[in-house]
Amino acid sequence: MNQVFVIRRERFNAAHRMFRPEWSDEKNREVFGKCSNPNWHGHNYILFVTVKGDVNPETGYVVDLSLLSKIIKAEVVDKLDHKNINIEVGFMQNIIVSSENLAIGIWKQLDPHVEKLGAQLHCIRIEETENNFVEYYGQ
Amino acid sequence: MNQVFVIRRERFNAAHRMFRPEWSDEKNREVFGKCSNPNWHGHNYILFVTVKGDVNPETGYVVDLSLLSKIIKAEVVDKLDHKNINIEVGFMQNIIVSSENLAIGIWKQLDPHVEKLGAQLHCIRIEETENNFVEYYGQ
Amino acid sequence: MNQVFVIRRERFNAAHRMFRPEWSDEKNREVFGKCSNPNWHGHNYILFVTVKGDVNPETGYVVDLSLLSKIIKAEVVDKLDHKNINIEVGFMQNIIVSSENLAIGIWKQLDPHVEKLGAQLHCIRIEETENNFVEYYGQ
Amino acid sequence: MNQVFVIRRERFNAAHRMFRPEWSDEKNREVFGKCSNPNWHGHNYILFVTVKGDVNPETGYVVDLSLLSKIIKAEVVDKLDHKNINIEVGFMQNIIVSSENLAIGIWKQLDPHVEKLGAQLHCIRIEETENNFVEYYGQ
Amino acid sequence: MNQVFVIRRERFNAAHRMFRPEWSDEKNREVFGKCSNPNWHGHNYILFVTVKGDVNPETGYVVDLSLLSKIIKAEVVDKLDHKNINIEVGFMQNIIVSSENLAIGIWKQLDPHVEKLGAQLHCIRIEETENNFVEYYGQ
Amino acid sequence: MNQVFVIRRERFNAAHRMFRPEWSDEKNREVFGKCSNPNWHGHNYILFVTVKGDVNPETGYVVDLSLLSKIIKAEVVDKLDHKNINIEVGFMQNIIVSSENLAIGIWKQLDPHVEKLGAQLHCIRIEETENNFVEYYGQ
Repeated sequence: MNQVFVIRRERFNAAHRMFRPEWSDEKNREVFGKCSNPNWHGHNYILFVTVKGDVNPETGYVVDLSLLSKIIKAEVVDKLDHKNINIEVGFMQNIIVSSENLAIGIWKQLDPHVEKLGAQLHCIRIEETENNFVEYYGQ
Repeated sequence: MNQVFVIRRERFNAAHRMFRPEWSDEKNREVFGKCSNPNWHGHNYILFVTVKGDVNPETGYVVDLSLLSKIIKAEVVDKLDHKNINIEVGFMQNIIVSSENLAIGIWKQLDPHVEKLGAQLHCIRIEETENNFVEYYGQ
Repeated sequence: MNQVFVIRRERFNAAHRMFRPEWSDEKNREVFGKCSNPNWHGHNYILFVTVKGDVNPETGYVVDLSLLSKIIKAEVVDKLDHKNINIEVGFMQNIIVSSENLAIGIWKQLDPHVEKLGAQLHCIRIEETENNFVEYYGQ
Repeated sequence: MNQVFVIRRERFNAAHRMFRPEWSDEKNREVFGKCSNPNWHGHNYILFVTVKGDVNPETGYVVDLSLLSKIIKAEVVDKLDHKNINIEVGFMQNIIVSSENLAIGIWKQLDPHVEKLGAQLHCIRIEETENNFVEYYGQ
Repeated sequence: MNQVFVIRRERFNAAHRMFRPEWSDEKNREVFGKCSNPNWHGHNYILFVTVKGDVNPETGYVVDLSLLSKIIKAEVVDKLDHKNINIEVGFMQNIIVSSENLAIGIWKQLDPHVEKLGAQLHCIRIEETENNFVEYYGQ
Repeated sequence: MNQVFVIRRERFNAAHRMFRPEWSDEKNREVFGKCSNPNWHGHNYILFVTVKGDVNPETGYVVDLSLLSKIIKAEVVDKLDHKNINIEVGFMQNIIVSSENLAIGIWKQLDPHVEKLGAQLHCIRIEETENNFVEYYGQ
């Protein structure tokens, strides 16, 4: 069988803030700089979900990317888009909202659903700005 | 003389919310949809500033773009970057924070400074997402 | 009042062929080169619709871009996406499917709808490849 | 020796259709949706070919990328560009024209030629749209 | 008749230096900063040529873009690509190699050739970096 | 612990030339083509630095990307930007200035500094043009 990686790109616009609640605003400002602004700031996040698996000989697909897109929308994008990630996103509560932790959080949301498609989640990539990206490949 | 247009691209990441304070949250939601989320959302805004003028025969420049960049940073980007536009940006107070109004507000910030450079402000373009843009050419 | 231009980007993937039915395949090949392939080829077309108008003081919008997007989808994208433009697109029948003619055809589809929004259609831009674009500003 | 990966980007515009000939048009439509349109649709495909090898101390190159580009054009791009992949492309006959299968097909075309250059084919990446990509790393 | 604008994108990689020969290196450094480095620096220049004209009812084209591309290559790109613009480019001799002057120089190269195609040169746009652009629309 | 990859994008504009000093200009031209132009040419180089490490539970970061950016600027970008790489860049002396060798040279500059941050350098990627890239993952 031929293993192929398929990648789906999605986007969401959200507000966030880098801070530790047990630290003062001054300490947060010292560690996180302008990213700790108590009045929030935001990003156009770009998300790339990579899934690997054998090519289904019936369809030529690893997974149907329009189906994968629907799953990403339901499990991830709809929960994050036009939201305040610190306040409103269940799977990011009590977690520092760095792109690193966001990638890990999104992995946990998607992993069981990708498995049900008969494929394996391979990578979560987040582009926070045009200069800063993170990639998580699971534990 | 040869008139040329020069364009400088800058970026800022900010939080905002679409809403009218005299409307209820329900009315705001009805008109502005998810963009009215009271907990804010945000964007990686991309700003294009176009300036026109004659080419200076001594330098070959309409304006020195590194100087224009410094002016845009001081007058616009530093006031918006990693800020909540509704709450923290002086020149956007009591104004609905649409990209249209943001472009007009940025024009007013930059216009007198561009004039001092011996050139004319021609266009403020804002890209809010990869699909939505506005352009303002002055009154 | 402040006139502002707002631009919405949409995409569609379609097949087409450059040819004149009254010409032989040889003549079509001579004039249109590989673009006249009788078995079709295709593109990821990118469409930019620019609308101009005064900023509504109630909403801060020229037009609600999510509404404009719905209109573009209903009147243009749904008719073109994953279609053979020569065969299946009503408003392009008996017209050579160049990007120039496509831009004019899309203008005619959208113009009456933009007027109903209280704004004016200003430009239809089509990007056929990363190197070839056309812009139509109406007659 | 220092192993380095070099990547060459190429493009081709082609028509295709997702379908299994032994299925009815209805069954094809059910599985493949609008991608099964019997009148075809098309894409601006973007191809990335990654080759790995030691840096030649005489030239500083793993392979001469202009030579690699010529090989990709002769063996892949010229066979696909402005073609109907289902009908006209020899190495895709009797294969469902998914991006997955296209990546595998292109790998088979290029692999012997890259070997002759003294390097190893590492990855074929195809971008079908700005949201959908596949990568194949060989068996 | 319907006037349409068509745009062709081309690229060239070149070395240059900002300087006035009658000034000392110190004065050049003061005015032009690091751009005056006597050992040169370089760019991947991106060029957009916009041509306007009526759509030819026989072909659906304003001009054949593959023909326009050949003209741009012969008259502009081949003279600039992998060259030192200050030293080796005839039409830029005794001119400060700013993007402004380069746009004007390219206009003069292309204008008579576009006229012979039965169209009008409308705009020369040069992107020197991802942040700095110039546009020239003729006198 | 969760290992995450973080990537920082930086840019520099530089001049270079492909050549071996022990070869004649003719031999250099034969092997390196127009890239061997004795008068130099140049590029807008794009650099991607990938670092891997465990997510710091205190900060949510693998490394502070603004700190990584400062290191890349001090150790790499300031030495290359607006420079002639063959003549002026210490760590590239007596080395053919291919992108492959440039990636290896940048790796050596950054590796000890990334280690001091408590993370591991994973990949140096250089984009020389929009079609040609190299990646180096260390020995």
